[in-house]
Amino acid sequence: MSYNYPFLALVGQEKMKIALILAVINPALGGVLIRGEKGTAKSTAVRALAELLPGQKIIEGCKFGCDPLEREKWCDECREKYEATEPVEVTRRRPLVELPIGATEDRLLGSLNLERAMVKGESVFEPGLLAAANRGLLYVDEVNLLDDFLVDVILDAAAMGQNFVEREGMSVTHPALFTLVGTMNPEEGELRPQLLDRFGLCVEVKGLLNPDQRIEVINQRLQFEKDPKGFVEKWAAEEKRLGLRIEKASGRLDSVEVDDSALGRAVDICLKLGVDGHRGDLTVIKTALTLSAWEGKPIDEETIIAAAELALPHRMRRKPFQDVDFNVRERLLVASE
Amino acid sequence: MSYNYPFLALVGQEKMKIALILAVINPALGGVLIRGEKGTAKSTAVRALAELLPGQKIIEGCKFGCDPLEREKWCDECREKYEATEPVEVTRRRPLVELPIGATEDRLLGSLNLERAMVKGESVFEPGLLAAANRGLLYVDEVNLLDDFLVDVILDAAAMGQNFVEREGMSVTHPALFTLVGTMNPEEGELRPQLLDRFGLCVEVKGLLNPDQRIEVINQRLQFEKDPKGFVEKWAAEEKRLGLRIEKASGRLDSVEVDDSALGRAVDICLKLGVDGHRGDLTVIKTALTLSAWEGKPIDEETIIAAAELALPHRMRRKPFQDVDFNVRERLLVASE
Amino acid sequence: MSYNYPFLALVGQEKMKIALILAVINPALGGVLIRGEKGTAKSTAVRALAELLPGQKIIEGCKFGCDPLEREKWCDECREKYEATEPVEVTRRRPLVELPIGATEDRLLGSLNLERAMVKGESVFEPGLLAAANRGLLYVDEVNLLDDFLVDVILDAAAMGQNFVEREGMSVTHPALFTLVGTMNPEEGELRPQLLDRFGLCVEVKGLLNPDQRIEVINQRLQFEKDPKGFVEKWAAEEKRLGLRIEKASGRLDSVEVDDSALGRAVDICLKLGVDGHRGDLTVIKTALTLSAWEGKPIDEETIIAAAELALPHRMRRKPFQDVDFNVRERLLVASE
Amino acid sequence: MSYNYPFLALVGQEKMKIALILAVINPALGGVLIRGEKGTAKSTAVRALAELLPGQKIIEGCKFGCDPLEREKWCDECREKYEATEPVEVTRRRPLVELPIGATEDRLLGSLNLERAMVKGESVFEPGLLAAANRGLLYVDEVNLLDDFLVDVILDAAAMGQNFVEREGMSVTHPALFTLVGTMNPEEGELRPQLLDRFGLCVEVKGLLNPDQRIEVINQRLQFEKDPKGFVEKWAAEEKRLGLRIEKASGRLDSVEVDDSALGRAVDICLKLGVDGHRGDLTVIKTALTLSAWEGKPIDEETIIAAAELALPHRMRRKPFQDVDFNVRERLLVASE
Amino acid sequence: MSYNYPFLALVGQEKMKIALILAVINPALGGVLIRGEKGTAKSTAVRALAELLPGQKIIEGCKFGCDPLEREKWCDECREKYEATEPVEVTRRRPLVELPIGATEDRLLGSLNLERAMVKGESVFEPGLLAAANRGLLYVDEVNLLDDFLVDVILDAAAMGQNFVEREGMSVTHPALFTLVGTMNPEEGELRPQLLDRFGLCVEVKGLLNPDQRIEVINQRLQFEKDPKGFVEKWAAEEKRLGLRIEKASGRLDSVEVDDSALGRAVDICLKLGVDGHRGDLTVIKTALTLSAWEGKPIDEETIIAAAELALPHRMRRKPFQDVDFNVRERLLVASE
Amino acid sequence: MSYNYPFLALVGQEKMKIALILAVINPALGGVLIRGEKGTAKSTAVRALAELLPGQKIIEGCKFGCDPLEREKWCDECREKYEATEPVEVTRRRPLVELPIGATEDRLLGSLNLERAMVKGESVFEPGLLAAANRGLLYVDEVNLLDDFLVDVILDAAAMGQNFVEREGMSVTHPALFTLVGTMNPEEGELRPQLLDRFGLCVEVKGLLNPDQRIEVINQRLQFEKDPKGFVEKWAAEEKRLGLRIEKASGRLDSVEVDDSALGRAVDICLKLGVDGHRGDLTVIKTALTLSAWEGKPIDEETIIAAAELALPHRMRRKPFQDVDFNVRERLLVASE
Repeated sequence: MSYNYPFLALVGQEKMKIALILAVINPALGGVLIRGEKGTAKSTAVRALAELLPGQKIIEGCKFGCDPLEREKWCDECREKYEATEPVEVTRRRPLVELPIGATEDRLLGSLNLERAMVKGESVFEPGLLAAANRGLLYVDEVNLLDDFLVDVILDAAAMGQNFVEREGMSVTHPALFTLVGTMNPEEGELRPQLLDRFGLCVEVKGLLNPDQRIEVINQRLQFEKDPKGFVEKWAAEEKRLGLRIEKASGRLDSVEVDDSALGRAVDICLKLGVDGHRGDLTVIKTALTLSAWEGKPIDEETIIAAAELALPHRMRRKPFQDVDFNVRERLLVASE
Repeated sequence: MSYNYPFLALVGQEKMKIALILAVINPALGGVLIRGEKGTAKSTAVRALAELLPGQKIIEGCKFGCDPLEREKWCDECREKYEATEPVEVTRRRPLVELPIGATEDRLLGSLNLERAMVKGESVFEPGLLAAANRGLLYVDEVNLLDDFLVDVILDAAAMGQNFVEREGMSVTHPALFTLVGTMNPEEGELRPQLLDRFGLCVEVKGLLNPDQRIEVINQRLQFEKDPKGFVEKWAAEEKRLGLRIEKASGRLDSVEVDDSALGRAVDICLKLGVDGHRGDLTVIKTALTLSAWEGKPIDEETIIAAAELALPHRMRRKPFQDVDFNVRERLLVASE
Repeated sequence: MSYNYPFLALVGQEKMKIALILAVINPALGGVLIRGEKGTAKSTAVRALAELLPGQKIIEGCKFGCDPLEREKWCDECREKYEATEPVEVTRRRPLVELPIGATEDRLLGSLNLERAMVKGESVFEPGLLAAANRGLLYVDEVNLLDDFLVDVILDAAAMGQNFVEREGMSVTHPALFTLVGTMNPEEGELRPQLLDRFGLCVEVKGLLNPDQRIEVINQRLQFEKDPKGFVEKWAAEEKRLGLRIEKASGRLDSVEVDDSALGRAVDICLKLGVDGHRGDLTVIKTALTLSAWEGKPIDEETIIAAAELALPHRMRRKPFQDVDFNVRERLLVASE
Repeated sequence: MSYNYPFLALVGQEKMKIALILAVINPALGGVLIRGEKGTAKSTAVRALAELLPGQKIIEGCKFGCDPLEREKWCDECREKYEATEPVEVTRRRPLVELPIGATEDRLLGSLNLERAMVKGESVFEPGLLAAANRGLLYVDEVNLLDDFLVDVILDAAAMGQNFVEREGMSVTHPALFTLVGTMNPEEGELRPQLLDRFGLCVEVKGLLNPDQRIEVINQRLQFEKDPKGFVEKWAAEEKRLGLRIEKASGRLDSVEVDDSALGRAVDICLKLGVDGHRGDLTVIKTALTLSAWEGKPIDEETIIAAAELALPHRMRRKPFQDVDFNVRERLLVASE
Repeated sequence: MSYNYPFLALVGQEKMKIALILAVINPALGGVLIRGEKGTAKSTAVRALAELLPGQKIIEGCKFGCDPLEREKWCDECREKYEATEPVEVTRRRPLVELPIGATEDRLLGSLNLERAMVKGESVFEPGLLAAANRGLLYVDEVNLLDDFLVDVILDAAAMGQNFVEREGMSVTHPALFTLVGTMNPEEGELRPQLLDRFGLCVEVKGLLNPDQRIEVINQRLQFEKDPKGFVEKWAAEEKRLGLRIEKASGRLDSVEVDDSALGRAVDICLKLGVDGHRGDLTVIKTALTLSAWEGKPIDEETIIAAAELALPHRMRRKPFQDVDFNVRERLLVASE
Repeated sequence: MSYNYPFLALVGQEKMKIALILAVINPALGGVLIRGEKGTAKSTAVRALAELLPGQKIIEGCKFGCDPLEREKWCDECREKYEATEPVEVTRRRPLVELPIGATEDRLLGSLNLERAMVKGESVFEPGLLAAANRGLLYVDEVNLLDDFLVDVILDAAAMGQNFVEREGMSVTHPALFTLVGTMNPEEGELRPQLLDRFGLCVEVKGLLNPDQRIEVINQRLQFEKDPKGFVEKWAAEEKRLGLRIEKASGRLDSVEVDDSALGRAVDICLKLGVDGHRGDLTVIKTALTLSAWEGKPIDEETIIAAAELALPHRMRRKPFQDVDFNVRERLLVASE
C-alpha cells in the first residue's frame, strides 16, 4: 500500500491551497489552473486534497458514478435498473482521476467496446475518464503540453457538466460534472487565450524564498519518506477536520446572499482591469460566494478582491509577449488612481 | 433533465439576435457567422434560439427528416414506404445539431454502415450530421479552427440544400437544407476569403461596457444557475410568443415585394463598398426581404441599409492585414461624400 | 426534384460562355480553366451548360459509358456481350460528373471491388469518376486546391482520352474522353506552370460593374428562387435550340478547312507572345477550327485572334510574381509595333 | 484501337532522337535523361520509338520476360520448366513500360502475392514494373518529381541489370536489363547530382523557333488527329526501315574497335571540362562505340566530340545555382585556348 | 558467453563513478544523468556497475520482480499464489535493463497480450521494460534523442516507484522502483528543463588529458580484448568487495542522521545558486545522506558541498543559450563574496 | 551467372584498398567509412573484396551463421542440435550482405515470423540482415542518406558483436560480428558526429587525375564488359594469393606486440590533433597492430602515422562548417612546430 503526503503538511503556497479548496466546494467555478516553476509540489497538493475528501457515494456498478440521491440525473442503466425494481446499492469511490500522459481521445471520452461489438454485434459504449471523473476531481498535469483538441474536449465537458460523444456511429451523452485541476509550467509554452479563459480560477506557485520554510519543507519530506505510515497518521485527525469543513461549506453554498453592490464592485473591477466578455464578472461573484461559504461570513469588499485575485489573473488584457500577471490588487490600485 | 438559458433573457447583443432570427426565418440567406471575443454568450444564444423554435414535423423513422408536407422532396425510403401504402406517421424533432469538436468527415457526411456491410454484405448508407440538421439549425463552434475541407463541405451542402456523398463506392444524395450558424474568435485565426463569402450574414459581438447591463447579466445568470426550472418557466410565455412570430414571418416571406429601386440601391451600396462578385447584392436584397417579413412593413431605404449591415461586413474589400470591418454605415457615408 | 439555373439566363460573362461551348463541341481542345473572383457564377455556368446538352447515348449497363456507335472503342465487357450475341441496349446518361471535394484517388481512378475480392476471390475493377465522365463533362471546382498528383492524373487522362490504372496488382485501361472544366480563384494559390499549360483554354471572370446588369442578375435570380420550375420552363425552348446548335457545330467540325496562312498567323502570334513549346500553336488552330464550326463561317484573321485570346493567356511567358495576363490582343499590338 | 504518332514524323529535335536511338541500341549506356520545357513532344518521342522496335522475343508465360536464346540468364521458373522438359514456347511483347504517376514501390519492385499468401500460405513473388521492363524501355515522365528513393531503386536496377528485392521476408533477384528514359522540366526542380550522374546520356529539348518548322509541326499533328490510321500507314515503311537499322547497329556493337588515342581524347575532354569520377570517360567511349555502330564508320575525333555532347552535359562541374550547361563543344573550345 | 569490462578497471572519471554508486545505493535519489562527449566510456561504466551488483532476489516466475521479503508490496499474482498457499520460490535476476533504441511505448509500459486476447478473449497485461527494471537499473542511452513523451513516462515511473497504465481499456498499476541512468551528448540536443530537473544527480564526463592515464586506458582495453576471461578474473575479488560495500551502505542508509544546520546549509546553497523549486534542496540532503552511508562518516560541510556538486548542476538558473554549468563549487565562492 | 570486377584490377585508390583489407583482417577495428565523389568505384571495390575472401565456414542450416569451431558462441538452435547429438554439418557462405535501399527495420534486425505466428501461434524469430552478415561484411551504400535510427542500430550491433532485439513481445540476442563498410558522398549530407566517431577507419576517394591511369581504367572496364568471364579468369590466381595473405594476416593478429612507446606516440598524436574521447587512441593502436600483421613487420613510427591517417580524419576537432579533413600528416607537422 502506498501513502499520500497530507495536504496540511504542505508548507506555504496558501493561494494554491485556497483555490483548490474553493474549486472542490463549488464545481461550478470551473476548476483551477495552477501555473508555476518546476519542483513546487503542484501534483502533491492535488493528490493530497483528493485524499482528504470523502469518497463520493455512487450507485454500485454504475459506470458513470451516478449519485444515489439525484434520481433525475441518473444514467439510463441506473434508471432502468430502478424501474425494473432491481436493488440499487450504494458504494463510495476515490474522487480523483488523473489523466495519464499520452492518454488517447478514446480513453478520455469513452469508446465503443470493441470486444462486445465483435463478439456479440452490440454497440456498447465503454465510458472513459470523463465518466470516471464524474462528481470528483480530474487532474491534468502539464495541461499546456496536451493536444489543444483534448483540452477543448475537457473544458467543454467541465462547462456543460456532461460529456457528449458522437463517434463511430454512436451518440452518447452522460453526466460529467467534475472539478478540473490543470497544472503547467509556463516556461514550456502557453495555453491559447480561448482555453485560458475557460478555467475558473488561476494561481501561480513559486519556490519559497524563506530559508526556515525551506528547511521545514525538507524536514517534513524526509520524515514522510522515512516513515510514510506514521507521518500520515500524525496528520490524520487534522486532515479529517478539513474534509468535514469542506463538506459543510459545500452544503452552505446555496444560502449565501449576494447584493447588487457586490455585483457592481465585481463589474467595476473587471472593467478597470480590461477583462474581455462576461465570464470574469460571473466568476468573481461565484468565487466570492464560495469564499463566503468557506469562511462562514458575509461577502464584503475584501471578499470580492480576494475572489478577483483568483478569478481574474488569466483574463486581464495583456500586451503582446507579456506573461499572465498575478498582481491583481496592484493593478487595481494603479487603475484607481 | 437539463435546462437551456432563454433567448430573451440574454442582455444586449441585439445585432446577433436579429441576425439569428432572420437566418432562421429564411434558410436561403445562407446562415450567420458570429465573430467575437471570448465569453460573449455566442453559444448560449444559438442554443437558446433553437429551444424556442417548434420542433420540425418529420416523417417518423426517417433518417433524413423528410417534411410530411413536401412529398416531391421525400427521400427514397419515405417514397417507397408511401408507395407501398405503409402508414407514414409524423413526429417532431429538435431543430438543432451541434458539430462536436473533432467530428470526423464520416460523422458529418454519413458513411457506410459497416456492421451491415460486414454481416449482410449490403452497402447501406448511414446518414450523418448533415442529414440530422435537415430543416433545422447546424451549429459549428470555433468554425475557424475546423479543417478547411470540412468547412467547405458544410458550406457546399448549405448552398445546395443537399448533401452529395461519393465515397467507398457509394454515391448518395439527400436533402440537407439547414440554417448554418458558425461562431469564431478572430484572435485565433481567420477563415479564408472564399469561405467567408459563403456565409450569408456576419455579425460581431463584444462584451457590454455598460455596468448596469453587466450587473444585469450576472444577476440573470445567478438566478438561472440557482433555479433553472423556475427561471425558464418565468420566460416561457414570452419565448413562445417569439417562436410564433418567427413562424409567422417565415410564412409571410413569399409575399414580400421588392421593386427595382430597392435593387438599384443594393447594387449601388455594393459597388460603393467594393464588394466582389454578385453574392453581396443578392444577399442584401434577400435580407431586406426577410427583415420586411419579420417587421411586417414594406422595404424602404433603412431596410436596405440594415440588411447591408448584416450582409456585407465580410464581403467588403480589405487592405492586407486589415480585419473584417463592421462599420458598413460609416463607410457608406464616407463613400457618398 | 431540383432545377438548374438556365445557361442563357446568365447575365454577361460572354467569354466564359463561348469557351465552355467550344470545349464541349470539341473535347480534343483539352478543356477550359475558368479563373475568377468569388461569387461570379462559375459553378452555375458549368452545371447549366451540362443541362442543355443531350444526354450521351450509352450501352445500357456499361460502367464505362461506351458509345453504341463506335464499336471499335468498346470496353471488353461490351465486346464480350456483343460477341455472345446478348442484346446490347441503348440508354442516355447525364453528361456531367462533378469531382466532390475530398474525392480520393480510388474514387477518381477506380479501384478493386473489395467486396467481390473478399467474398469471391475475384479481382474486379470498379470504375471511378473518370469512367463516369467518359464522353461528357468533368467539372473540378477549386482545382488549384486539389492535390497536384490528382490534377496530374486528370490531365493525363484528358490528354490521352483514356485512363490507365496500375495498382494493387491490377492493370486496367479504359476510355476516358471528356471535356475537363476547372475553376479556381487565383487569390487562393496558383497551379504550377506544367499543369496550367495542359488546359486547352483559359478564361477570366470578373463581377459585372454595370449597375443595370447587376440588377438584372438579382432579378433573374430572385425569379428563379421563387419559382424554379416556371423560370426553367420560360427558357426551355431557347435552351433546346442552343443544345441543337452545339450538336450541329460538333458534327461540322471535321469538314472545316484550315490553310497554311492561318497556321502561319498562329505560329507568328505564339512567337510574338513568347509561348513555350508547341501546344500553344496547336490549340490556337484547333480553337479557330471549332469557332469556325460554331459560327458556320470560314477561318479569318479575327477567328485566329479570338482563338488566341482563349488559348494563350496561360501560356504567355510571365515575369516572376506576375499573374496570368488576359490581354492577349493588347500584347499583340505592343509586340507588333 | 489507338494509334501512336510515328517517330520519323516528329519535326526537328535531332539530338533527342539520336540519343534515344543510341540508348536503345546499347542498353549498357545507362539510358537517357531528356530535359526541356513543356509541350516539346518528349513523351510522344519515347512512345513513338518504342512503337518501331520489334517486340522482344520472350518465353511465353514468363513473368520476367526471359530471352529464349540466353539460357544461362533464365529465371528459376523458366529453368525448371526446361529441365522438366516442358515445352518452352516463344512470344513477343511490346518493349515499353511507362511508370504511371503515383506508382508505388510495390508496383515498381514487385511484391508478395497477397492473395496466394493468404489463401494457400505460399510466399509467391509478384513481379513489378522492373520485371516487365526487362529487355525493353522503361519510361519515367517527370522523373524529377518522383520520390528520390524510387529514382534510386530504378537507377540501381538499370546499372546492375537486375532487381534485388529484400522485403516482407522475401529475398528475390531477377534480371531487369532495360533502357531507362526519363523526362523532366527543370523549371519544376532538379535531380540531386548523385542521381544525375547515373543517367548515361542527357539532352535538352526546346521549342522550335523556325516558323516553317512550327507550321510543319501543326500540319502533321492535324493530319494525324484527323486520320490517325492513314497517317501511321503513310510512315509505316520508313519506320520499319529505321527499326531494322537499329537492330543491325545493335548486332554490330561488339565488333567496333576503339584505340588508345580515342581513349586519350575522351580522358582529355573530361579533365578539361572538370568531370568528377570515371563514369564520364567511360560513357563517352561507350557512346562513341555505339555511334560508330549506328553510323557504320570508325571512331574519329568528331565521333568522340559528338559522344561527349550527349554524355557529359550533366557531369560537368557547375557553380552554385548554375543550371546544367549543354554547350559542351563551346566549353571545350574555351578550355583549349 | 560474453564478458563485461570491470567497473574498477575504468581509468579516471571519478565523479561519474561515485554518482552511479550513490544512485544505486539509494534509488530514492532519482537516478543519474551522465553528460559528455563521445567515446568516454559512459555505457561501459553503467554495464560494469550492474555486473558487480548482486542480482536482486525475486519471486520466481513473477513478471514484476516482486521482493520476497516485502509482502505488502507484492503484485496481485504473487499475493494470490501465496494466499492459495502455492509454493513461492525465490530466484535472482540481473539488475540491468537497457532501453533498446527505437523501443516503443508498448514495450516500455507493457501492453495487452494480443495472442491471449485473440485466442482466449482475455485481457491479460504483458509487463514491459519498466516492470523488468523493478528494483534494478534502467539504462537509457542518448536519452536526449528519445521522444519527450517516453522520457516523461520513465521519469514519472521513477518518481512514483510505480507504473500506471491506462490504455486499450486496461487500467494497471505495478511497482516500478528503479535507478534511472541516462546518458547524453549535449552537442546533439538538450533535454527540456522540466525533464532535466527530474533527474536526481547530474555529472559531466570528458576525455582524459593526462597522457599516462590515456596510455593506461589503451593498455587495459587491449588486455581485455585479448583475453576477456583472464582480465575479468583478475579484477573479480576487488569487484566483489565493491559490491558488498555498496550493499552495506544501502543497509546503513536509514540510520544516517541529518541535523538542521545541514539542512540550513543546503537551503543556503540552493538560494545562492538560484535553484528553482524545492527538489534541489531535498536532493542535496538525500545525496549527503547517501554519501555519509557510503563513506561511513557523519555529514559535514564538505559532504554537503560534494552532494551539491552532484545534485545541482542541472538545476542552477542559466542565461539563454548558456550550457549546463558544472562548476558548482566555483559559483558558490563567487556568490559568497 | 554474373561476374564481379576483380579487386586487384582496380586502378589506384590505394588508401581505400588498404583500409578495406585491414577492416576485413580485424573486424574489431569497427569498419570503414569511404567518402568520395560520385563515380569512383566505391561499390565496385567492396564487392570485389568480398569476392576474394574465402566464404566463412558455418554450421549448415544455421540462420545466424555460427562458426563450427567456436562452440561457446553457438546460438541456441545449434547448441540444442549438438546436445541432441544431431549431426552438425559444415558449409560455406558468401561473406557479403548489402543493405538494399529502403530496407526496413524489420528486415535489418529480424522480426517475428508472422506466418508461423498466425498459423501455429508460435512466436518464432526470423533473423534479419544483421544475422546474415555475422562473420562477414555488411555493406551500406549512401549511409548518410539512411535514417539515423537505422545507422545507430547497425553501429550498435557492430560495436557489441551482437544484435539485441526487443520488439512485439520478443526479446532475442544473437551474434552479429561483422565488418561494416559504409560509403557516402559528403555533397549530399553529413553523418552526425556521434555516428561518425563510431566508424573505425575513414578514407576519402577522389577521381584520378593522371590521364594514363584514367585510360587504364577505361581499358580495363571495356575488357571486363566485353568478356567478363575471361577477365575474371585472368586475375584469378593473383586474387587468390591476396585472399590467402589476408587470411594469414588475420591469423598473425594475436601475436603482434605493441610497447608503451607506441602507445605514447598514439596518445601524443590524438592530443595534438584534438581528438575527443578515447576511441581515437585505441583505434590508432589497433590499426597499427593490424598493419603490422598485414605487412609482417614490427610497429614503428611510420606504422603509427599510417594508422593515424586511417583512424583519425573523422575524429579531429573541426570548426563549424569545416569539412572532414584528411591531411592528418600535414596537421601533425603543423602541430609539432
